[in-house]
This record gives sequence, C-alpha cells and structure tokens, in this order.
Amino acid sequence: MTFELTVLGSSSALPTSTKYPAAHVLNVHERFFLIDCGEGTQIQLRKARFRFGRINHIFISHLHGDHVFGLPGLLSSFDLLGRKTPLHLYGPPDLQIMLDFYLRNFAVEPEYQIILHPVSEPHYHKIFEDKVLEIYAFPLEHRIPTLGYHFVEKQRPLNIRKDRIEKYNLSIKQIVRAKMGEAVTLDNGQVISNAELTEIPYRRRSFAYCSDTAFCRKNASLIRPVDLLYHEATFLEEDYILAKKTGHSTAAQAGRFAIAAQAGQLVIGHFSNRYKDTGLFLKEAAEVFPDTREAVELQTYRIDLQKEPRSS
Amino acid sequence: MTFELTVLGSSSALPTSTKYPAAHVLNVHERFFLIDCGEGTQIQLRKARFRFGRINHIFISHLHGDHVFGLPGLLSSFDLLGRKTPLHLYGPPDLQIMLDFYLRNFAVEPEYQIILHPVSEPHYHKIFEDKVLEIYAFPLEHRIPTLGYHFVEKQRPLNIRKDRIEKYNLSIKQIVRAKMGEAVTLDNGQVISNAELTEIPYRRRSFAYCSDTAFCRKNASLIRPVDLLYHEATFLEEDYILAKKTGHSTAAQAGRFAIAAQAGQLVIGHFSNRYKDTGLFLKEAAEVFPDTREAVELQTYRIDLQKEPRSS
Repeated sequence: MTFELTVLGSSSALPTSTKYPAAHVLNVHERFFLIDCGEGTQIQLRKARFRFGRINHIFISHLHGDHVFGLPGLLSSFDLLGRKTPLHLYGPPDLQIMLDFYLRNFAVEPEYQIILHPVSEPHYHKIFEDKVLEIYAFPLEHRIPTLGYHFVEKQRPLNIRKDRIEKYNLSIKQIVRAKMGEAVTLDNGQVISNAELTEIPYRRRSFAYCSDTAFCRKNASLIRPVDLLYHEATFLEEDYILAKKTGHSTAAQAGRFAIAAQAGQLVIGHFSNRYKDTGLFLKEAAEVFPDTREAVELQTYRIDLQKEPRSS
Repeated sequence: MTFELTVLGSSSALPTSTKYPAAHVLNVHERFFLIDCGEGTQIQLRKARFRFGRINHIFISHLHGDHVFGLPGLLSSFDLLGRKTPLHLYGPPDLQIMLDFYLRNFAVEPEYQIILHPVSEPHYHKIFEDKVLEIYAFPLEHRIPTLGYHFVEKQRPLNIRKDRIEKYNLSIKQIVRAKMGEAVTLDNGQVISNAELTEIPYRRRSFAYCSDTAFCRKNASLIRPVDLLYHEATFLEEDYILAKKTGHSTAAQAGRFAIAAQAGQLVIGHFSNRYKDTGLFLKEAAEVFPDTREAVELQTYRIDLQKEPRSS
C-alpha cells in the first residue's frame, strides 16, 4: 500500500542541465498520478522507470510553460506506444485550448481517448474518487488561474480482532456488523462496543501539492493536517518582494505554510536558478519547519503506513 | 575557423532516458545554427554548454512533434534570460501556426523579436547568406512538407604569397589586384599569372541535413560533394517496407545516399527505439559507406580545414 511522491523536476521556469521543470508522480497503491508536465517529463518518466501505460490521470496546476510544455510530447508518445486506455486530464479550463491545438496540428487520430476534466469551481471541491482515494482541487494565488491538489487516502475498513471473535464466539453476521463500525449484541443480551471488537488498520494518509503560489494561510486550513506537503519555494526570503510581485513563495514562507497546514513532512521545489546553491532553500525552510526536504530529480518521498492511535 | 556539428538528440519520435529527439547545433566560425528543436533541446543545449545568446538562427525541418516540441520552452527561456537580439526562425510555412499559438498563449510580450522566414519554394534555393556562409533549403520526401538544409562555407579571399611579393617587388595596388584573382602586369611589362602569386587558403566546407526523409537520389545531386552529411536512419534494412511506408530511410539507404552525394563523412541518427542496439545502424550503414559515424548525444563531428589542391 504505497503512498509516495517522485520528483521529476525541481526547477522553476528556467531549467538547467540537471534540473527539469515541474513534474511529479504520486503513487497511491500503485495508481500513478502525474502532477504537472514540464518539458522533458517523458524523458524523466523513463529515467525513473515508470511505465507509461500505468499513467491514466494527469493533473495540471496552471498554464505556464514550465508546467505544461511536456504534455504534447507525452501525449504523442502514448499514441506511438499503442495506448488504448483513456487518459484523464485535469486542469484549468484553458487546458482545452492547448489540447485542441495539439489534436489539430500534431495528433493524427490518436487511438486513445483524452478526457478533459476542466476544473473551474473557485473553491475546495472533490474532483476524483475511486476505491482507495479522493482528490480535491482548490485555487492557489498565482498570476493566472492555478490549482492546488489534495490527495486523501480513504479510510480502510475496520479490522476485526481475532482474539475477540474467539472470546465472544462471534457469528459471521456479528463480524460483518462489527466491521461496519456497529456495536454487537451477544445472544445473552450483553452489548460489546465496536471499539472493543475492532481496530483501525492504518491512518489515512494525505498529500497536497501547492505550486505555483504566493503564501496563502487560508489554503493551509483546507488541507490540515497533511502528511506530505509539496510547496513551491521559488525564492529566498531576501527576495520576498519579488516573490510577492510574481505570485511565488520564499522558502521560509513554504515552512510557515507547512506549520499552518500541520504537515508531517514538507518537500520544497520549483527553485529559481538565480541562486547557485539549492541548499540555501533547504536551510531557510528548515529553520522554520525542521521536517523539510529538498525536491531532487528522481528522488522519492514516502509516507509510511502508521497505526492510528485509537480514540476510545 | 570552426565548422562542426554537435548532436543534441539522436532519437526518432520516441525518446528514451538517454536519447533525445532531434536537435543539432552547427557551429560555422562561431556562428551557432540550431537545426530542429525536439523536446528537451534547451536542456541539451545547457549540457553541451552552448550559450543561449549565441543562437540567432533556428532551422526547423518539419512540423512533427519530435522536431519542434522543444521550441516553446526555448523561446520562453530566451525571454526569461532577457534576450533582446532578434531571433530568426526558418521552416515550413505552417510554423507560423505554432508560433502564433505560443505567442498568444504563453508569451507575455517577449522583449525580443521573432522573425519567421517561411520556406515554401519547392526547389533548392538560397535562404540565408552572410560574410562566411550560404544556406540553402530543399524539399525532402516525407509524409508532410519537410525541408533539408545545406550549409556552404564561402570561399575565403585568396592569400597572397609573401615570397612572391618580395620576388616581384609588388606594390600595394598590385597586391590588391592579385588578391581579387587578377593577373598582375609588372613595371617591365611582364604578366604574372594569378596562380603564381596567390594560393587558395582553404577549401570551402559544407554540411547537409537530411531528416526526415525517404531515400531520394535526386537530392544527393543538389548537395554533391558534401563534407559532412547528416542523414536519418530511422530503420534497418530488414524494415525497408516500413521505412518506405512512413517516409523514412534505412541505415543502408543513408549509406547509399552518402555515396551518391559524394560525402566526406556521414552521420546517421533519428534512430527508432524498436532496435535495442544502435550499433546495428552503424554496422549496416558502414558496410555501404565506411566513413559513417553514429549520432550520439553531445558528441561533436568536426570538418577540419583542408588546403585545396591548386588547379594550375
């Protein structure tokens, strides 16, 4: 039951020879969600050994080139690889313009369907749900319409305690009730609380993606608490004014946001290449929020399973 | 007086973790010409340590994604780097559609001018000339309008032989005449042939780019003889029918084209990744044309200066 983020690109708008533009893969129980798709994403996917056929959902934060210029190439490659499975694209409504341009000029009747889910509601809302996961979108504060994404694992069914089955000699019917969270009445009339019969198998895990965005405290309340937070840190605090002017955050602000969002772990990325040492971002953010890690190409950031302390 | 080709991408439509789509830089006397611009070109340019500001001319062969998907990112980066120098873009007329899409949706008033030179004449013709170089375009045989490019160094001015200046006690006026290719009449009435007074400094060098294309013998006559030939070799001869069907060449055909074009050296590239070993392309082409080299990312293929044998 994997829940992990792999960074494909840690750069902001100007990539370098080693730092690619924004792209990330979130693996939730072997479902692979691509988040943003900067130039070279398909090459980074190859390097990280992700199978293209496993990616069925792509989430685009906004229509700045460093977050989408890898999309036409990836869509082409899907087709060349003989893809038949539909592909779901989520993003701001204007993604349709880009998709239309691609389909009209570069795709000779692709054999797979591209289903665009335009995300236009200007508030936190659910955009996806399956058996194990819910995904929410919410507006970020950037120069153009930009979306944050919040991935929340669903609560797994309660585990029935084997020792309690024996102790109370529970019937199948009683076990089913207990697994549904109900108390159980024994044949002798004794009522056994659900808490005594079951345990929550694992705490539900969550991940939030906030890029590109200015510091926005109210967004922290939408995703609080969050196990793993990706927050952009385009600038250092010394360039606070520039960050504000361009709708970006400083590393310290990313740290402050992580505190406000009660994050378990913070990953910062989207680094401007005006600074030669990305270690400066990490230092600045970690002074505010110690559990900070630097986004590094092809590195994976995992959220381990954790037993939830039972509130009885 | 450099004349060399650097390969940035050797792959055909499906890049891998190490093989990028088509992009090449031709350096002629420190003028840098970018030829095709597949996804990731700007990253490869960085790796090869080319300065972005030195690239003022980009030549696009055709509008298949693996030859142009790197263009929007590169144009954006030029702008972010504060470029002011105009950029000249050469390619099929429909390149305008791609440029318009980029300018309308992704470029917030770029500070440099992008000058598109649509190449529509369906025959070999000159599209560029400066002090040291002429560039010609000609149609290739592919599924959509596709251009080959032929770069021809200009003949450098004649060198006057110092020993002859002394021997004939030549005046400045006489030296100027000799450098212009004229015979010189001495004060005593003796006529000295130009060949005795001067020597051609170096043979003019040439490079031709033929990708993507089916084998086309008549094009070889347009560029003959050519010092360095880049010719695509998407397939092996065992897939001859597939090559023909898709408007591509086999490695053996690239070799045959090199013979017909009297090439000094052949570089093959645009490899399909259906074959696991690119050495097979080299083997097949070199059996036909021994002076064949395999296109490898970030490798440079140089044409050295050569004294031309004087025809007296």
